[in-house]
Amino acid sequence: MKTLVVELGARSYPIYIGPGLLDQKQPLASHITGRRAVIVTNDVVAPLYLDRVRALLGHFEPVIVVLPDGEQHKTLGDLNPVFDALLTHRCDRGTTLVALGGGVVGDMTGFAAAVYQRGVPFIQIPTTLLAQVDSSVGGKTGVNHPLGKNMIGAFHQPRCVIIDTSTLGSLPDRELSAGLAEVIKYGLIRDTRFLAWLEENVDRLLAREPQALAFAIETSCRSKAVVVAADETERGQRALLNLGHTFGHAIETGMGYGSWLHGEAVAAGMVVAAELSCRIGWLQPPDVARVRTLVERARLPTRIPAQLGAGQVLELMAVDKKVEDGKLRLVLLKALGEATVTADVPRAVIMEVLERCGAGT
Amino acid sequence: MKTLVVELGARSYPIYIGPGLLDQKQPLASHITGRRAVIVTNDVVAPLYLDRVRALLGHFEPVIVVLPDGEQHKTLGDLNPVFDALLTHRCDRGTTLVALGGGVVGDMTGFAAAVYQRGVPFIQIPTTLLAQVDSSVGGKTGVNHPLGKNMIGAFHQPRCVIIDTSTLGSLPDRELSAGLAEVIKYGLIRDTRFLAWLEENVDRLLAREPQALAFAIETSCRSKAVVVAADETERGQRALLNLGHTFGHAIETGMGYGSWLHGEAVAAGMVVAAELSCRIGWLQPPDVARVRTLVERARLPTRIPAQLGAGQVLELMAVDKKVEDGKLRLVLLKALGEATVTADVPRAVIMEVLERCGAGT
Repeated sequence: MKTLVVELGARSYPIYIGPGLLDQKQPLASHITGRRAVIVTNDVVAPLYLDRVRALLGHFEPVIVVLPDGEQHKTLGDLNPVFDALLTHRCDRGTTLVALGGGVVGDMTGFAAAVYQRGVPFIQIPTTLLAQVDSSVGGKTGVNHPLGKNMIGAFHQPRCVIIDTSTLGSLPDRELSAGLAEVIKYGLIRDTRFLAWLEENVDRLLAREPQALAFAIETSCRSKAVVVAADETERGQRALLNLGHTFGHAIETGMGYGSWLHGEAVAAGMVVAAELSCRIGWLQPPDVARVRTLVERARLPTRIPAQLGAGQVLELMAVDKKVEDGKLRLVLLKALGEATVTADVPRAVIMEVLERCGAGT
Repeated sequence: MKTLVVELGARSYPIYIGPGLLDQKQPLASHITGRRAVIVTNDVVAPLYLDRVRALLGHFEPVIVVLPDGEQHKTLGDLNPVFDALLTHRCDRGTTLVALGGGVVGDMTGFAAAVYQRGVPFIQIPTTLLAQVDSSVGGKTGVNHPLGKNMIGAFHQPRCVIIDTSTLGSLPDRELSAGLAEVIKYGLIRDTRFLAWLEENVDRLLAREPQALAFAIETSCRSKAVVVAADETERGQRALLNLGHTFGHAIETGMGYGSWLHGEAVAAGMVVAAELSCRIGWLQPPDVARVRTLVERARLPTRIPAQLGAGQVLELMAVDKKVEDGKLRLVLLKALGEATVTADVPRAVIMEVLERCGAGT
């Protein structure tokens, strides 16, 4: 088991990474301070792992909440079953929520923990690659609104993150690829050595070689921990972690939540970001080709679906959280391994690139 | 205009108190930092004051959200119109929400601001006595759940609080009395001189004498500001501000939200707290009589409604946020002007006092 730490002063917490952690009482049990625990999971993950986690928490007699699977079930109203369970079981402020599942379960459980009785502790046990390398770390929690992804939420850091790498054995191929999108992201925004490693090892990752996956997860979590520690509430460099996300959120919202996986939309969004970075003279065409090839090899989409018009995508991007005083701020690449935020790209140039990347006219 | 400050480091903010502030562009406008403002109000307050506040914010072209009036409309789902408006109008992170109304509008607007895009600024313009002396100050925001008051929420401090004392002219008598409950609370928990002043001046307050009201508001806000500055997230002494509230919340929830006003339930709750404090030997019968008499003179209820059984009240109290590790913590009075938190009162003693105070058997 490897341990990384997200350094946030009094809110610092460990990330545990290793195979078989779902069969170990520690470190999980030691991070539950009160008398009660509530496990929140979904109907796909529950049959696979719920009994094991419940067994680890036996003496807490955990309350169980099983949510429906999928991004389309991540709304404000979908939180009601969590609050109903918490109140029906008289859970007080000392209750710890445990998120067992992918990014949707983690975001929803974290947000429920952030606002239940104005804040209770929670723990992340991510079971998808995407959640393990990205969404479970850093304390971004929230739900979607029909008009925008993650528009309602809170910063609320978990007490710990427990990544059992063995859970990836049961992950559908499509979900594995979706997770790789966020892994590739770290290479693109801040780590060219890792980018080169990914280009060499993407096939091993797709073949689920445990050592390759463990290295990719650890490297990703380390990157995320450093960025979050430096900028918890995204006033500066944390925004760089959103490479591809403004385009991606527009795709997810435009196509209807649950149609594209988050990682798939981010993958296409990163290619668009690379193309746009090239169009304004920051990247060279061979750089863009490297991005596109790696995304393709990870079996991820590289184009905006044609049924979304470029104007529609731009509209949807305009409600993104990266907008400030009406200006659309984009994460682009000055070079491979060097992301930056800019609000200086003319709309016409964005439109042109959106169309070149597949958006309808 | 008087100015008090809630000292919270980087989150410090002023409370402005005076007549006619709704006709002055400053201080309101100077506390809006972005380009957008959204006014959230309700259908009772809007006809009275919306045009004036909208005029003050003219150059921000404020978005308007009018909610239905009443505690029964303070649920998670009732926040949707606020989020819909924010997203439809593409409000970004620089948007400031302005709460114009009583405690329900303030709590809901503050919570919406706390979670919209993981947090945007907001301003309180309280128009009821209760909101002016209590709920608008201190950053407690949230909504109700059918099983418990304010169970879903966040700590989120406003940028400023603007109290136009002239608005009390339009307040229904019942609402004025409800506000006096929280005013009396400050005297009971920490200020015997103020308690004596209230006993002398309660009739002037009911007659809406402007100087008496201004003094009561200022004294209350000063008390609240001191307590909140010392304990923002209620780990200690802030809990004392909840005198009467655990009983009161049980009454509100048990009777159905909107049936009793919050202040009315708190008033009866304070009398119960005084009776219980006497039962365990802390107060003397003449102290309890002083509390009851003052509450009665403020035209507030002093008894639990008989249709609520004592057992039911105790059940409802058990989901209160003051519960910790299953123990019911109560705010009681060691003496008049000296509140304390205790978890040591046997259930049987609480039941006995609940019944003596009107609860059914």
